[in-house]
Amino acid sequence: MIARMSTLFVRTLREDPADAEVASHKLLVRAGYIRRAAPGIYSWLPLGLRVLGKVEGIIREEMAAIGSQEVHFPALLPREPYEATGRWTEYGDGIFRLKDRKEADYLLGPTHEEMFTLLVKDLYGSYKDLPLAIYQIQTKYRDEARPRAGLLRGREFIMKDSYSFDHTDEGLEAAYQAHRAAYVKVFDRLGFEYVIVKATSGAMGGSASEEFLAVSEAGEDTFVRSPGGYAANVEAVTTLAPEALSYEGVPAAHAEDTPDTPTIQTLVDHLNEAFPREDRPWEAGDTLKNVLLTLRHPDGTVEPLAVGLPGDRDVDIKRLEGQLEPIEVEPMDDVELKKHASLVKGYIGPEALGEKSESGIRYLVDPRVVTGTRWVTGANVEGQHVIDLVAGRDFTPDGTIEAAEVREGDPAPDGSGPLTLARGIEMGHVFQLGRKYADALGLQVLDENGKLVTVTMGSYGIGVTRAVAAVAEGTLDDIGLCWPRNVAPYDLHLVATGKDAAVFEAAAKLAEELKAAGIDVLYDDRPKVSPGVKFKDAELIGVPTIVTVGKGLVEGKIEVKDRKSGEKTEVALDEAVAHLIAVVRD
Amino acid sequence: MIARMSTLFVRTLREDPADAEVASHKLLVRAGYIRRAAPGIYSWLPLGLRVLGKVEGIIREEMAAIGSQEVHFPALLPREPYEATGRWTEYGDGIFRLKDRKEADYLLGPTHEEMFTLLVKDLYGSYKDLPLAIYQIQTKYRDEARPRAGLLRGREFIMKDSYSFDHTDEGLEAAYQAHRAAYVKVFDRLGFEYVIVKATSGAMGGSASEEFLAVSEAGEDTFVRSPGGYAANVEAVTTLAPEALSYEGVPAAHAEDTPDTPTIQTLVDHLNEAFPREDRPWEAGDTLKNVLLTLRHPDGTVEPLAVGLPGDRDVDIKRLEGQLEPIEVEPMDDVELKKHASLVKGYIGPEALGEKSESGIRYLVDPRVVTGTRWVTGANVEGQHVIDLVAGRDFTPDGTIEAAEVREGDPAPDGSGPLTLARGIEMGHVFQLGRKYADALGLQVLDENGKLVTVTMGSYGIGVTRAVAAVAEGTLDDIGLCWPRNVAPYDLHLVATGKDAAVFEAAAKLAEELKAAGIDVLYDDRPKVSPGVKFKDAELIGVPTIVTVGKGLVEGKIEVKDRKSGEKTEVALDEAVAHLIAVVRD
Repeated sequence: MIARMSTLFVRTLREDPADAEVASHKLLVRAGYIRRAAPGIYSWLPLGLRVLGKVEGIIREEMAAIGSQEVHFPALLPREPYEATGRWTEYGDGIFRLKDRKEADYLLGPTHEEMFTLLVKDLYGSYKDLPLAIYQIQTKYRDEARPRAGLLRGREFIMKDSYSFDHTDEGLEAAYQAHRAAYVKVFDRLGFEYVIVKATSGAMGGSASEEFLAVSEAGEDTFVRSPGGYAANVEAVTTLAPEALSYEGVPAAHAEDTPDTPTIQTLVDHLNEAFPREDRPWEAGDTLKNVLLTLRHPDGTVEPLAVGLPGDRDVDIKRLEGQLEPIEVEPMDDVELKKHASLVKGYIGPEALGEKSESGIRYLVDPRVVTGTRWVTGANVEGQHVIDLVAGRDFTPDGTIEAAEVREGDPAPDGSGPLTLARGIEMGHVFQLGRKYADALGLQVLDENGKLVTVTMGSYGIGVTRAVAAVAEGTLDDIGLCWPRNVAPYDLHLVATGKDAAVFEAAAKLAEELKAAGIDVLYDDRPKVSPGVKFKDAELIGVPTIVTVGKGLVEGKIEVKDRKSGEKTEVALDEAVAHLIAVVRD
Repeated sequence: MIARMSTLFVRTLREDPADAEVASHKLLVRAGYIRRAAPGIYSWLPLGLRVLGKVEGIIREEMAAIGSQEVHFPALLPREPYEATGRWTEYGDGIFRLKDRKEADYLLGPTHEEMFTLLVKDLYGSYKDLPLAIYQIQTKYRDEARPRAGLLRGREFIMKDSYSFDHTDEGLEAAYQAHRAAYVKVFDRLGFEYVIVKATSGAMGGSASEEFLAVSEAGEDTFVRSPGGYAANVEAVTTLAPEALSYEGVPAAHAEDTPDTPTIQTLVDHLNEAFPREDRPWEAGDTLKNVLLTLRHPDGTVEPLAVGLPGDRDVDIKRLEGQLEPIEVEPMDDVELKKHASLVKGYIGPEALGEKSESGIRYLVDPRVVTGTRWVTGANVEGQHVIDLVAGRDFTPDGTIEAAEVREGDPAPDGSGPLTLARGIEMGHVFQLGRKYADALGLQVLDENGKLVTVTMGSYGIGVTRAVAAVAEGTLDDIGLCWPRNVAPYDLHLVATGKDAAVFEAAAKLAEELKAAGIDVLYDDRPKVSPGVKFKDAELIGVPTIVTVGKGLVEGKIEVKDRKSGEKTEVALDEAVAHLIAVVRD
């Protein structure tokens, strides 16, 4: 087909939109692919819709290849199934809720586990019906607190969500691996750099879970990698706990005056001055920091939590939330703190914490705080710290938790070397949900022995509109978008320059010949637009090959430019069609 | 492609769903095309989604053929643009409204005039940018009071909505005609009987407006046709008003006792007994019935209205609402009636009505009530009617209105003969919106003289999910669905019967050969299902051609059955592929 710039519904902008932070967002708006309709809600112009269609097409092909069948669910969903699984409440402010004219409760679906489960329950009843894999490409809604970065975190967005149904764990494992392999093919075809990382499963429940992250500074997810191949979302990293130590011969804990030491650094400085160690100076890692937090449950109730961790690390709230989902975590405020009379702000030690203490606050420690480790920590007295407090001897926490920040250079938990940190965009997520939803909604089938067994499920998502942004983000350059061929809105961008009627005739003829060969051409036929503006538009729009018919025509030549490399080739007009077919099919 | 019944996500039902009234709804559920998720909200199974895709494909092709470009808007829309055009209020209970976490108002878009207008305003600024036609195929929402008939009147549904933008009235007329012609092609290809009728434009505003109705008893719209080619939605029919009559020599109006005449029929009987006419008996059409109504505005305010019409006709509330949209009309209740002391229930005459009367109630009459017509009507005294009350002499209404029911045999307003009534499903609607939305939202362009002019718009809709139901409804028969070839989920339904492995091998080979020829085959490969069940399923599912490989195989024969006619043909296996290609391409 041929689209003509003279009539295409597009206008490019020279200025970045005011609300755009990341490069892909700026360029997708400037190049006329999308427009903002409301915060986190976008309209798609023809160019954008074509790229979206290409991405959807790739996903559909790879889903069909593993035998997954396409269905389509509504976005407007009744409350009851989400009530049955607890998610009506768990989602908190994160979903859009509404009432119909009869005051019945509805939500705009953020994800469709419940609906898929109920549909399979409606249709199927025997193990012979399984395995089953079904999916949809559908518009979803989340009332994000901070929609950002254009399509990267929207409030209305398109997802591909698949679900697998099996009656055995082996079946689920096979379905999981099939979807994982299909996702590898999808993301390979989309043409950007990605990693597969271990993930927590968040509000979804379930066990095994991996994420596909597009490697990008614009991403909101932090992940780690080791030289030996370990990769995980930072929320899912586990800490290598050291072996328990013997504390034989460790002196009894002793409280000391430590005036004016409100921070870890001032405490360490004071220790080194007042209580110098012989072997080496005191370090922040010798102190045990106790951080008080408030956990907010989706139903609005709150409870306190204390986390103990080495003083050289901060609590990573997002990582903590990853393990406590759907609970939200925030630092405990002073009003709440004052409710616990036994706690001395700035000098809180383990003895004031724990379910058996006076405060009764649950006390969890970093996995590095193993039995036998020695700490300097608060003495529960204003202006005092305690030295030589030994875990397992002087205090026993209620348990451990992964709450500490992960740092560059930390060891990978599988021993595969030091971790490096990077940022990524979550593009896909594969989960082994297990029986959580089937249990809640009563999805059972008769097995080989005529016994009812609960079905086990997998859930597999791809952010489709987000993928458009991620591809853009991963491929753009200083001058504009730079689409991989698989998802480009057109195969070729053909530019006719100058005022010579012969140029426009030759270009129009070339466009028709290319169309006849099945090539999709964006033809810049605008008669009164300067070559400079046309080239700038072509670079901004980012079709992978730019063909110019202009001055060279008098010598029977056209110019073919690779958008990515900038490499230009002169081609004889009468060889142009064959040459361009080869370029496009390459 | 080949879909196999052994793995296809479908289960046919022998029983009709309890909530289904119309045949297409029953069969689409029973044959496994759709499932109900909530009132008026449906999930699409693979079979249904394939038909939906075919319908969408036909629409896209015909839109592209008239140069309309596809875009895509969100469904979750901010309040402000709909406030600017007044529709936030006008829609009343008919739309879904919700708030986000910041308490900002949103709606689920019922139609997108506002968003399209604003997008064009964002991108375009000159007459040189026009004409423009853009469209989307998108999910829409209406909070229908009575969702019914499955997909025919849903609360979440897919529409194709197009909009045209021009700077001259001639441009709008051309765009309107282009869309009208495209719709003719779309509906011809969908393969059901339809009519194009004059329509009122309802909440859309604007002037010229036509509807495409699928002729069907299951429809909610009543339309009329005349032998001479007039066709209109019953709401849009205009009444042929007679010429004014001379009332010279008509006796003065005289009130008479008419005891016990609460209904038109008892009044007519009484008149014929007590005041017999010489020329002919009194008839219901000689009486003037005054009906009191309450108009409910979208903002909740109410006002009274009186309608005078010949006693042989009832008020058609829907027809009246068609002219007063977005006002809702209901009969005035006794509480309201008693507020008007001058009105005597059952004996209300024109003198008690009208803006200048004591009641002050606006009084509109049927167009047949022209000057000089003589009526028997209420005397505003309990138990009395007035005879020889002459319009234009004894009373003057505030105006006329089309409120009377249209009846079989009424004359077409264009003189093309008597009207017949039928029912239809509204499938498409083409409107000349004019400048209403562009005015409200400030969409102007510079014209040839550098002057700002307001853009004129057209709005063109097709109910896409409704079209699936309408095609089903218009083509089904006693035994199941019966798709036209253009929209059938598959080209062929291939059934292998019996237990003979050779049959299944031959069928599988045939399926592969057909697939290689580009034919989409639904192959019933289920090994343990009886031929009777397989044939019943095939008839229910309604693929246009059913191919059976079974007993005849020993003689090298297969059977080809036309689903619609039931006609069976024996074909030699080695000629089967060529024969079936010819059948499918026919």
